[in-house]
Amino acid sequence: MNIIVQKFGGTSVGSIERIRNCANLVKREVDAGNQVVVAVSAMSGETNRLLGLADEIDPASSPRERDMLASTGEQVSIALLVMALHKIGIDAISLTGPQAGIVTDGAYMKAHILEIDNTRVLKHLSQGKVVAVAGFQGLAKNSDEVTTLGRGASDTTAVALAASLSATRCDIYTDVDGVYAADPRIVPNAKKINRLSYEEMLEMASVGAKVLHTRSVQFAAKFSVPLQVRSSFEDIPGTFITKENEAMETTVVSAIVQNANEAKVTLSGIKDQPGTAAQIFGLLSERNINVDMIVQNVGTEGLADLSFTIDKSDVPRIKEIEERLKSIVNANELQIDKNIAKISAVGVGMKSHAGVASRMFRRLAERSINIRMISTSEIKISCVVDDEYTELAVRTLCDEFGLTEASEE
Amino acid sequence: MNIIVQKFGGTSVGSIERIRNCANLVKREVDAGNQVVVAVSAMSGETNRLLGLADEIDPASSPRERDMLASTGEQVSIALLVMALHKIGIDAISLTGPQAGIVTDGAYMKAHILEIDNTRVLKHLSQGKVVAVAGFQGLAKNSDEVTTLGRGASDTTAVALAASLSATRCDIYTDVDGVYAADPRIVPNAKKINRLSYEEMLEMASVGAKVLHTRSVQFAAKFSVPLQVRSSFEDIPGTFITKENEAMETTVVSAIVQNANEAKVTLSGIKDQPGTAAQIFGLLSERNINVDMIVQNVGTEGLADLSFTIDKSDVPRIKEIEERLKSIVNANELQIDKNIAKISAVGVGMKSHAGVASRMFRRLAERSINIRMISTSEIKISCVVDDEYTELAVRTLCDEFGLTEASEE
Repeated sequence: MNIIVQKFGGTSVGSIERIRNCANLVKREVDAGNQVVVAVSAMSGETNRLLGLADEIDPASSPRERDMLASTGEQVSIALLVMALHKIGIDAISLTGPQAGIVTDGAYMKAHILEIDNTRVLKHLSQGKVVAVAGFQGLAKNSDEVTTLGRGASDTTAVALAASLSATRCDIYTDVDGVYAADPRIVPNAKKINRLSYEEMLEMASVGAKVLHTRSVQFAAKFSVPLQVRSSFEDIPGTFITKENEAMETTVVSAIVQNANEAKVTLSGIKDQPGTAAQIFGLLSERNINVDMIVQNVGTEGLADLSFTIDKSDVPRIKEIEERLKSIVNANELQIDKNIAKISAVGVGMKSHAGVASRMFRRLAERSINIRMISTSEIKISCVVDDEYTELAVRTLCDEFGLTEASEE
Repeated sequence: MNIIVQKFGGTSVGSIERIRNCANLVKREVDAGNQVVVAVSAMSGETNRLLGLADEIDPASSPRERDMLASTGEQVSIALLVMALHKIGIDAISLTGPQAGIVTDGAYMKAHILEIDNTRVLKHLSQGKVVAVAGFQGLAKNSDEVTTLGRGASDTTAVALAASLSATRCDIYTDVDGVYAADPRIVPNAKKINRLSYEEMLEMASVGAKVLHTRSVQFAAKFSVPLQVRSSFEDIPGTFITKENEAMETTVVSAIVQNANEAKVTLSGIKDQPGTAAQIFGLLSERNINVDMIVQNVGTEGLADLSFTIDKSDVPRIKEIEERLKSIVNANELQIDKNIAKISAVGVGMKSHAGVASRMFRRLAERSINIRMISTSEIKISCVVDDEYTELAVRTLCDEFGLTEASEE
């Protein structure tokens, strides 16, 4: 018998009506003769409500207690989903992450799954039950402590369960019917992508697409778990995410992704000395400030400019250490520019097609869009532009790479 | 070092502000040099909210899943309370019922505590931590299943912990400052009771006083745990509930309790034959209908009337089996009277003072209050009267037995 893992996010279980809908989606797989394991998120808004209560007491409250608090959200969802399943005649049982044998490294609020002891899940499956597992949580190894996997990590629970159970497929149900080649709010006729490689999905997630939790895709890639991103509301095929293979569409670029959540920091007038960059980024990492893109230009007089992008939410923390950053490199000035957007083109086709970068730069230039920073990987090109050009840049590139329904490449 | 167990009910932790107040009440005991264990209920309204969601799906949903759902309420409270304790500099840790070693018989929604493995609680106490334990829940013996102890059972968690830890005292914090000799809504100047025996408190709970969960008092009596019912909002001594001893006040009657939640069922014109009562009450027990008072009168012609009281919420279930009840005893008629109230006088003093019942009956008669049914125990007399006389009856008896502040017996 095939095992299917289904994952329902917060929106999909956001009300009793929607939970009933999920129960029907589970029933569809059961009726098709599959064994079904479901990973469920907290009802939408619930995790925020709970952590909001915690913040009211102390925004810096103990990670252990925040996990004790937040892990209740998923427990509520699994119980309600199982009740809805019973109501339509499906035998089912709910398991918390610890009950489902999900063992983590014990890092509160950001635990990683170390292993899954799936004995109990398999027992219930063999009894003919659907097993609903609380996402986002697990038991710290060799202890009796509840840990959460970090926001959005119910995807990871689903994929880890699928890997552990050698599931035929892991279906990630969401409020969209798949992954699109561009944000439909910007490009209403963006193509839906039928098939993506793990690599592309990872790059898309890393440059700002919010479809799947990055870690879940890494996990799926590592264990070759076939993923499908599909709609909770429409019964149509979604986007399949699998190993790169010949059946992949041969488009050069699969998607254009914009990210407006970064700010650009520039230190200018730096005496270019070996080791200065290391000191800068060492300090940033000490302060838990993640850096994305980095560009360094050396001018004619030996004075360099160093630019990097950070999450906008880290801007206050940069301001706290502004003087230290400047003194490390003897910089004249530190500038922070929040009005930027990162536009990325992602596609495995780039591996075999030359000239994608130049097509991208030329098209943006034709529209008078200045490129402030560039960063590339084997299957991705990212450009930082002024944020007022976001929509124009995305539409221009979708057009160039044939990513809208009406257009043909 | 003395161990004090504190219990905070739903109202006491009903908001962040109130949780902060509870943290201060914990700090008071810590500052006094005590080791403190706290049992906490769900925030007021939370259990109803959760079970309301379940009812929306299916009022008859699986008890196991209802427990999975409802047990989250207390988990939220303990985490928030511990955050509030940390914030005021008190070292503390939260434990779910299972983590605290509370082992139950596994009966979902109405589990009984079988034993407490207090190893972990003692370990944390010895580390100088306050331990906040989720009330109302425990792990089913030899399993990994969460069970709840039934509504209001956080009192029982507190008392069981106190017994297991040989605590010096178990303080039940609530929104009133103690147990009163009568409902203050009816008798505004009712005396606060300084000291009660377990026996009296049990009788009061059994006749309808809602101060403490009955099972918690039984537990306290069994293990001689000194209880105090006291206010979360005012720092004044509450009501101490202990073994009956010479220090008890020598009042004849300690309290007058009214209960308007019962209905009276009368089967009339019964041929009085041995065994009919057994058949009637066998059928009721089969249907899970609890019977409180029972009175049977045999008339002159050998025809009897059988009356009993049940919870008002069971009236629809009585109506379902009305014809069967009548046919069992060949009764002419089955009458249900919901307009009744049970007025009880409770006091250990009755053991040594004769004539309490006759004083009670006479005073009610003087006020033209008809007594419909009577039931007595060693330390309690209950009378059923028409419910319109409730307030008058309670005030009359408070007056008779000196239970108001202004009066003297």
